Amino acid sequence: MNDSSPPRTALPEFRDVLAAAARIAPYAHATPVLRSRSIDEMAGCELHFKAEHLQRIGAFKFRGACNAVWSLSDQDARRGVVTHSSGNHGAALALAARTRGIDCHVVVPEGAVAAKVAAIAAYGATLHTCAPTIAAREDACARVQRETGAELVHPYTDARVIAGQGTAALELLTAAPELDALIAPVGGGGLIGGTAIAAASVSPSTRVYGAEPAGAAETFASLQAGERVTEFVPDTLCDGLRGTLGAPNFALLQRHGVEVLVADDSDTAAALRLFLHRSKQLLEPSAALALAAVFVHRERFAGLRVGVILSGGNVDQGALATLLAG
Amino acid sequence: MNDSSPPRTALPEFRDVLAAAARIAPYAHATPVLRSRSIDEMAGCELHFKAEHLQRIGAFKFRGACNAVWSLSDQDARRGVVTHSSGNHGAALALAARTRGIDCHVVVPEGAVAAKVAAIAAYGATLHTCAPTIAAREDACARVQRETGAELVHPYTDARVIAGQGTAALELLTAAPELDALIAPVGGGGLIGGTAIAAASVSPSTRVYGAEPAGAAETFASLQAGERVTEFVPDTLCDGLRGTLGAPNFALLQRHGVEVLVADDSDTAAALRLFLHRSKQLLEPSAALALAAVFVHRERFAGLRVGVILSGGNVDQGALATLLAG
Repeated sequence: MNDSSPPRTALPEFRDVLAAAARIAPYAHATPVLRSRSIDEMAGCELHFKAEHLQRIGAFKFRGACNAVWSLSDQDARRGVVTHSSGNHGAALALAARTRGIDCHVVVPEGAVAAKVAAIAAYGATLHTCAPTIAAREDACARVQRETGAELVHPYTDARVIAGQGTAALELLTAAPELDALIAPVGGGGLIGGTAIAAASVSPSTRVYGAEPAGAAETFASLQAGERVTEFVPDTLCDGLRGTLGAPNFALLQRHGVEVLVADDSDTAAALRLFLHRSKQLLEPSAALALAAVFVHRERFAGLRVGVILSGGNVDQGALATLLAG
Repeated sequence: MNDSSPPRTALPEFRDVLAAAARIAPYAHATPVLRSRSIDEMAGCELHFKAEHLQRIGAFKFRGACNAVWSLSDQDARRGVVTHSSGNHGAALALAARTRGIDCHVVVPEGAVAAKVAAIAAYGATLHTCAPTIAAREDACARVQRETGAELVHPYTDARVIAGQGTAALELLTAAPELDALIAPVGGGGLIGGTAIAAASVSPSTRVYGAEPAGAAETFASLQAGERVTEFVPDTLCDGLRGTLGAPNFALLQRHGVEVLVADDSDTAAALRLFLHRSKQLLEPSAALALAAVFVHRERFAGLRVGVILSGGNVDQGALATLLAG
C-alpha cells in the first residue's frame, strides 16, 4: 500500500471525473459521436454513438488507465505500475505507462490468447506469466509489487480508473446534450460506474442503463437481489464482460439508480453485423451488445434521444469471421 | 440528346469541380480524414485517409451522381434520370434523385446480386431488368430514355460525374495540404480523373497515382501502350474495378501524367484486414487496394505525406467472411 495515493476503492465523485478529463486530455483521443439515419429508422429512436472503438488501444479502457498513471506522484510513478489483465486493460495500462515513460508489469495467465499478450508486449509492458488461477494471479501481482514497488491498478474497482472511464460520458453529454437515455455495457462496472457519475451531474434527467449479456447477467441479478451475486459461470461471446461486478461499482449503480437491460448473444451478433455494414465500423461484441439492448428493449426508447457508448473494437480475426458467417 | 445540358463527354475542368462542390454541399457528407500512427509506422510514410466509405450510400459515387442530378435544369430534371449499374453508382443515382424528388430508372441485368438490387430499390429507384449482355443493357436504357425523356447519367464518362468525384480530392487537399502524393483506385476512371483535375489546380506539386488490381490492370497497359486497351477479362476481388477505363478518363490520365501502380488481390485482402483491425473501419476491396499499393510500392512513398482516397465500404457479408478467414 502507498499512503500518498488516494484510497483506491473509495467511490469517485464528479470532481474526479472532471480532474481525469483534464489529466488525460494530452494523451487520449476525444472520440467522435457518430450518427446513422438508417439505424435510427430501424431502432425508432435517435441514437448518438460515442465511438470508443476509435480510442487509443481500440477501447475506452485507455481513459481509466491513463488517469491512474498520471494521478501518481513523480516519486510513485518512478516505481511503475502493475495489473493482471490479458485484455484491453493490460494494453491500456501498458500504453498509458509508455506515455509517462514508466515501467508497466502485466501478470498474464498461461494459456491467454497469444495475439492479446503480444499486443500488450508491443506497447512495452513487462510480462509475468502465472498459472491460470486467481490465487496464482494475486500471488504474482503481490510479488511484482514487493520486488518493484509498482502501484497496482485494478481494471475496474480502482477509483482513478472509474473516474477516467467517466470521461467518455462527459464528452458525449457535452457533444450531444439533452439525451433522454444513456446506455453502456457492464462487465466489472468501471465504465458504467463512471458513466453514472458523469450523467448525474451533467444531465440529471438522463436515465442511465447498463447492458449485460444474458449469459453473464450477474449485475442484473445483483440489483434485483440487493446484494452482489458473485457465483456464476459466464457463457457469452462478449469476452470483455465475463468478469464480476466490483463492490464499489455495485455501490455506484445502486446510488445512481442504474437499471440493467439484458440481450442475447444472437442479438449482439446481429447488432455487430448491422453496425459493420451500415456504419462501416468494427465493434467488439461487448460494444455491439449496447446497441442490441436498444433494439431488444425498443419500447423503452421509442422516439427518444439515446446515447450509446461503443466501448471498443478489438475482435480476434477468427472470432469475427465466425460472427460474420453466422 | 438534350441540347440544354453541357456535352456529356467533354473533359471537365477545375472550375467544374469547384461548381460541383458548391452544388453537392447540402446533400453529401464532407467525410473525415483519418490517421493511424501504427499504419504510418508500418508503411514508412505519413498517410492521410479520405474516408469515402463514410460517404452517403457508403461510397464516393454519391458525389458524382449528386452533381449530375443537381446540374439538370428544372425542366430536364422533371423527366428523371436513368443509368445501368447494379453497383454503387446505381444506389448513388437513386439517392441523388431522391434528394431532388425526381424519378430514377436503373437498368439491372438478370442475375445481378440480389442484395445490391434491393439496396437500389430501397433508395426509391424504378428497376428495369434486362438480359445480361451489353446490347440488351443499352437497348433497355435507350427504351427508358425514349419513353420517359430521362437523362442518362453514365457511371464514369459523364463530365458531371467526373467533376463530382473530384470533390473528394478537393476536400482532402484542403484538409491535408502539401501532400507529396495522392492515390486513388482506378476502375472506369471517374474518381481518378476528378482527382487528377483537382490536384493539378490545388496542389500542382502533388504526384497523382492510380491503383489497379493485377487482375484488371488494363489502365496500366493502356498508359504503357499510349492507347486504350479494352479487350481483357477481369479477374479480381475488387468488384468495383472490373470495368473498362473510359475514353475521356484515359485522356485525363494522359493529360495529367497519372501513373498507375498495381497490387495483387492477396495484398488487397491483407490491407483490408489490417485497416479493419487497426482502424476499425470496413473498406471494400477496391478501397483497400489503394492502401495495398502504398505497401507494395513503399520505396516510392518512403517518408512522404501521402493522401489515400478510400473509395467505399460496401462489401457483401459472405465475401467479407471469406476475406477474413483467408
